[in-house]
Amino acid sequence: MKVFITGGGGFLGYRLARTLLAQGTLSGPDGKPAPVSRITLLDTAFPAAADPRLHTVTGDLSAPGVIETALDADTAAVFHLAAVVSAGAEADFDLGMRVNLDGTRVLLEACRRLARPPRLVFASSVAAFGGALPATLDDATTPTPQTSYGVQKVIGEYLVTEYSRRGFIDGRSLRLPTIVVRPGRPNLAASSFASAIIREPLAGRDYECPVPDTTGIWLLSPRKAIDAFLHALALPAAAWGHHRVLNLPGISVTVREAVDAMARIAGARAAARLKFVPDPRITAIVDTWPTRIETPRARAMGFTADTGIDTVIRDHMREEGLAEG
Amino acid sequence: MKVFITGGGGFLGYRLARTLLAQGTLSGPDGKPAPVSRITLLDTAFPAAADPRLHTVTGDLSAPGVIETALDADTAAVFHLAAVVSAGAEADFDLGMRVNLDGTRVLLEACRRLARPPRLVFASSVAAFGGALPATLDDATTPTPQTSYGVQKVIGEYLVTEYSRRGFIDGRSLRLPTIVVRPGRPNLAASSFASAIIREPLAGRDYECPVPDTTGIWLLSPRKAIDAFLHALALPAAAWGHHRVLNLPGISVTVREAVDAMARIAGARAAARLKFVPDPRITAIVDTWPTRIETPRARAMGFTADTGIDTVIRDHMREEGLAEG
Repeated sequence: MKVFITGGGGFLGYRLARTLLAQGTLSGPDGKPAPVSRITLLDTAFPAAADPRLHTVTGDLSAPGVIETALDADTAAVFHLAAVVSAGAEADFDLGMRVNLDGTRVLLEACRRLARPPRLVFASSVAAFGGALPATLDDATTPTPQTSYGVQKVIGEYLVTEYSRRGFIDGRSLRLPTIVVRPGRPNLAASSFASAIIREPLAGRDYECPVPDTTGIWLLSPRKAIDAFLHALALPAAAWGHHRVLNLPGISVTVREAVDAMARIAGARAAARLKFVPDPRITAIVDTWPTRIETPRARAMGFTADTGIDTVIRDHMREEGLAEG
Repeated sequence: MKVFITGGGGFLGYRLARTLLAQGTLSGPDGKPAPVSRITLLDTAFPAAADPRLHTVTGDLSAPGVIETALDADTAAVFHLAAVVSAGAEADFDLGMRVNLDGTRVLLEACRRLARPPRLVFASSVAAFGGALPATLDDATTPTPQTSYGVQKVIGEYLVTEYSRRGFIDGRSLRLPTIVVRPGRPNLAASSFASAIIREPLAGRDYECPVPDTTGIWLLSPRKAIDAFLHALALPAAAWGHHRVLNLPGISVTVREAVDAMARIAGARAAARLKFVPDPRITAIVDTWPTRIETPRARAMGFTADTGIDTVIRDHMREEGLAEG
């Protein structure tokens, strides 16, 4: 069974590939586990890879000729994670439209030409929501994105649903919560603080949090995100019906709750590395994001959230080889 | 003041142009009526035109070079009505994507390049809704289109909202009910029956209605649709805020109620020209359409529906020069 991952050099995409290599199988169209014979990653850069089943293609999905080179005719599973992130698509409208919208269309058209309609999981986002939102969203809340990135994700969802209705693919779109804890360093993304408030102090680095500690976060751990991608792919088409978009379960915590949990687990010295220096520009963006979503449909389909922020922090420390305090 | 109408050779587009020529002015950016100096119509065919202010461009919006020729740099008002209709977009997926999605993007990009962001009214449709719907929809109902045409319209709405948020245009999308009574002859559109059950008998022609007489229709007259286009353009941006999509008010009637009204107004002889020969394929499509929408937002903004099916029928008869029976 051949697998294709766009954004396969990114944090989630590469972790998904490593998980697939480790488990060795993936649910096939008949619902039975099939050996993963080859994983092709498409991205602009990659970590060093060393597995005979792993194949990397360097390129931009929306550039002419790239998808023809990258996508094998008998690909059965596609994970579409490639995107210009929120801040990037906001700073450069044309770049976001080209990569996030045109790139998705290029991929869907290439999938349509495959010998057999592949299953496709599309990484959408809670950035589908924005603006004046109810305190708790649910499966019926209409997407009202307030960023170019969010608009491009919602349009991608509609295309994935339509290509599925047409029988060109068997698609599924997942609206991911904010992923916490992301590795790396703080970046320009408005959501960067959500991981940094935990990751930076634990790594012994000071961090200035740009939002007040009352700020709410709707979050999912990297491990649960990978679980969700694999579960979304494994579910039969009948479990989805016509409606191919799903709000994933997450947990709702405030910055204060996350910091207190870190102090409990890693000690007060770590927590003391945080300062709060609110940035009105970032706070204004973050305040439009949903902080709580009721997700009965996803739960009925077997998707689950993390059990709590403590588990999320402990997972991260274990993966990074950090000792509890 | 220069006006641009895509689909300007079509029934609604050309009627809109004639209305603008007759009234001679259109609400300008400052809210005051400004003289209409020129109306450019873009379409693949036109009725005979004879007004020095009227300029026609024959071409396909999505074809290279067409928009550059057609759109004057100082255009202040754009009405985007051009589309491959529902049945056409369903029969030819690529054609619908090219004209309805790519064509809309070409237009929006051209508007973005104008000296000053134009006001733009986009003709969307209740085809945005579909599938298992509640008996009554409202302003919060999430679009779940079940046709390629509906998907393309919803994507167009999101683009119009996003281009407006970016300040590239000042856009407004109107979800039109089924327009009744359309002139002409029955065609392959699944909604064709809604006009034909009134128009054909009144014109002395027999008609076989392909849906049962219990079928509900959410409808708006051509006159009210033109009123809505002009009102949508005249409203200041502040009246819309971020949310640029509106379900237009309509009236909900069954086929039986429409036929009974026609018999009251035009006589039983006209009504006797109707036969009911249900076509399961058409009935299946029509049954997924909404038949009643609560529209408090549109009403608060000053949009109105027809007063009843009798008015709609009498309007049509007057326009066609038909005597009441």
